[in-house]
Amino acid sequence: MTTTYDLVVLGGGPGGYDAAVEAAAAGLKTALVEVGELGGTCLNRGCIPTKLWLGATEAVDELAAQARMRVAAGEISIDFAALQGRKDKVIAATRKAMATRLAQLGVDLVPGRGRVASAGTLEVDTANGPKALHYSHLLVATGSRPMSFPGLEPDGARVLDSTGLLALAERPKSLLVVGGGFIGLEMAQAMHRLGAKITLVDALPRLAGLEDPEVSRVLETAFKRQGWDLRLGVKVASVKTRGEHAVLALDSQIGGGEELSADCALIAVGRRPNSADLGLEALGAKLSGAGHIQTDKHLLAAPNVSAVGDVNGRTLLAHAASHQARYVVERLLGKTTAPYASGPVPSILYGSPEVFRAGVLAEEAKAKGEAVLVSRAQLIANPMAQAHAATQGFVKCVWRESRVVGITAVGAGVSRLACLALLIIKLGWTREDAAGFLFPHPTLDEALQAALLADKEAV
Amino acid sequence: MTTTYDLVVLGGGPGGYDAAVEAAAAGLKTALVEVGELGGTCLNRGCIPTKLWLGATEAVDELAAQARMRVAAGEISIDFAALQGRKDKVIAATRKAMATRLAQLGVDLVPGRGRVASAGTLEVDTANGPKALHYSHLLVATGSRPMSFPGLEPDGARVLDSTGLLALAERPKSLLVVGGGFIGLEMAQAMHRLGAKITLVDALPRLAGLEDPEVSRVLETAFKRQGWDLRLGVKVASVKTRGEHAVLALDSQIGGGEELSADCALIAVGRRPNSADLGLEALGAKLSGAGHIQTDKHLLAAPNVSAVGDVNGRTLLAHAASHQARYVVERLLGKTTAPYASGPVPSILYGSPEVFRAGVLAEEAKAKGEAVLVSRAQLIANPMAQAHAATQGFVKCVWRESRVVGITAVGAGVSRLACLALLIIKLGWTREDAAGFLFPHPTLDEALQAALLADKEAV
Repeated sequence: MTTTYDLVVLGGGPGGYDAAVEAAAAGLKTALVEVGELGGTCLNRGCIPTKLWLGATEAVDELAAQARMRVAAGEISIDFAALQGRKDKVIAATRKAMATRLAQLGVDLVPGRGRVASAGTLEVDTANGPKALHYSHLLVATGSRPMSFPGLEPDGARVLDSTGLLALAERPKSLLVVGGGFIGLEMAQAMHRLGAKITLVDALPRLAGLEDPEVSRVLETAFKRQGWDLRLGVKVASVKTRGEHAVLALDSQIGGGEELSADCALIAVGRRPNSADLGLEALGAKLSGAGHIQTDKHLLAAPNVSAVGDVNGRTLLAHAASHQARYVVERLLGKTTAPYASGPVPSILYGSPEVFRAGVLAEEAKAKGEAVLVSRAQLIANPMAQAHAATQGFVKCVWRESRVVGITAVGAGVSRLACLALLIIKLGWTREDAAGFLFPHPTLDEALQAALLADKEAV
Repeated sequence: MTTTYDLVVLGGGPGGYDAAVEAAAAGLKTALVEVGELGGTCLNRGCIPTKLWLGATEAVDELAAQARMRVAAGEISIDFAALQGRKDKVIAATRKAMATRLAQLGVDLVPGRGRVASAGTLEVDTANGPKALHYSHLLVATGSRPMSFPGLEPDGARVLDSTGLLALAERPKSLLVVGGGFIGLEMAQAMHRLGAKITLVDALPRLAGLEDPEVSRVLETAFKRQGWDLRLGVKVASVKTRGEHAVLALDSQIGGGEELSADCALIAVGRRPNSADLGLEALGAKLSGAGHIQTDKHLLAAPNVSAVGDVNGRTLLAHAASHQARYVVERLLGKTTAPYASGPVPSILYGSPEVFRAGVLAEEAKAKGEAVLVSRAQLIANPMAQAHAATQGFVKCVWRESRVVGITAVGAGVSRLACLALLIIKLGWTREDAAGFLFPHPTLDEALQAALLADKEAV
């Protein structure tokens, strides 16, 4: 007898796992195919281990801030081997909890690499040989992997991608970081707190190039103050392991040909989708030039095939994948027929300072010719920022026709504002709404209120 | 020529200051009378200096959490004199900014003690002699002061109230705290981080007796783990300075008559209103047995006299005072005629762990015979709690007819959930609303989502 699954999920990261859980909980016969480990990049090689590094080292920056005020002094030493051990233990425990949950819900977990053999059948290359899974619907959530460019390839020695850096057994005393996006910045911050001298190189003229330019300026000031060597707007010719060092050669034209050297180098120049050899093209699926699986307004890539998360290239964030996955399951269950709408997707940079963004950026709106206004408040007037001796930064609101449509912030602890800001944007608050809300005192959240109440300016 | 002010404000704390600013900004001729310093208890002797202590010492507890995991080791020393200097400097700068703002808005700041001489006239005892201020409306925002009981009086030596403790020049090596409410707990936590051995005594059988009993249990476990000597459900007979020590005698019946001794004692057993000798009774105002100025549904204490903040006894929190003050000004401006409605007023305990509460507590509802359900999530499953090695605690939601009406939480960092929780309660979210909201990952806020999505139980 042949089982046909209501849903086969390919990939056990945040999107795939959440889809399998939601589907099975709703009574769908569900299988989950995963070639590696449950939890995907986020849990095993991305957000979670990075946050474990940052969480474990937060006292270092808290102390540094007070030491600058001459209020505190001291030394904190992190046992890197113990930190790595704890990271691996926490992640393994989470994976185990995920597997238990899947089993409780009756999801068939099939370890192996999956590939569509024909419409309705996924063939999985398992340790016990090939296994065919028949599906009514296939959800592809295969994620992404670190990108590299010629000359900037991780070599398994001292030139590493994010996966390699997170797996280090010994703490480097110095680190070259190629790429000033959120991945590079979070890892560089953790390594800085662990005592590594940071040199960061990016071809863009500013850090966090996708964020508000004012945010970039605050980040640059903060990291320079911490002693980082920032090389922005320069081109990297190559990064190679040479003996006991990683050596980065700047381009002779755009970088002066200088050589930079450190114990290790991290290549964090983006991620590329895991979309090759899935057999989807035969079903009619199309890949973009960058390799992302193209999806329609219902997140369909082909008849009875959806794609969610990094692999469709819409938003490379775990919570975006989960949100898309839940939509696909709701649609399968007949609970919605509407097109997929993410609404504003918040993004967060952790560390010190932190950054968050939700909704529209002023520059984006301006580029589209939209008439928006901005209002802002500096953190320096906020008592909680003062208490942590971390008063650099601001909250900035973007307004369209008297309603707030975007909020971004930079500064110590501003990630705490992200969910509230997102909900405020979804509600389309006016200035009056902000004035009538009872913000508790003292909170960093009052800086968000101050920004919402501040005078509006043209962009 | 005699000036008649549209509004005279008596008291320059959060309520009085905000009223003066709002009124003057709206064009009302306004005077502010303050006998002491601008900012009131909150800025000078309450929330703000306590948060400066807690902020400056946060690294101590962050380090301790990682040290328990054997991930970090080290020593942090706080220069108490420098901390006190910084505290005084920050507070002075804030006071100066407040005075500047008042001057910019044209508010007449009158230093001195004010008393109603007759309806429409406040007499102020200034350094240059008495001065009469004529008003169309008087707003009384005179605040409160620490309470004491016979045998538990601060003596200016080693038995201190919160004002005295915040003014200490030297850090005590040990501290007796009488009172396990938020004031006692925040100050004790700061002193613990500064190295003081804490003994805390309360007549109630649990800490934070106004909060959910499950919250109290988490706090008690956390503080015992930190080595505090907790004496709950015992009665204090007396606290006296004896030589170089503060000595607390427990009641012979309810406490076994034991004597406890420390460098200092903090009496934090509540606050009493500054309502004496204001001349309000002649205008028809009434005081409660505890001395609070009684206010009607429009916050009026007598014709043309409003009272806001601690002195009216409604909610002893700075943001409640500000909210009431803004209502009074809006009503004067004719912008509202509706009765005052605070909505849920959030409260926060800072430290490690933190506590917040917004809206209805399950026990309160149950005591009123209301049918409510609760749902909860433990922090241990949350990746940000794991990252900070601080996984004790929970988020708990109270539901009435499928809508959330109360949220409370205890654990490291949970104050970040307070504003979001408050807005969720105001919106009356259903479970479906929580499921559809895109919580960013990883965030501590996901613990709130997990609580909102968890199965509901009867209380």
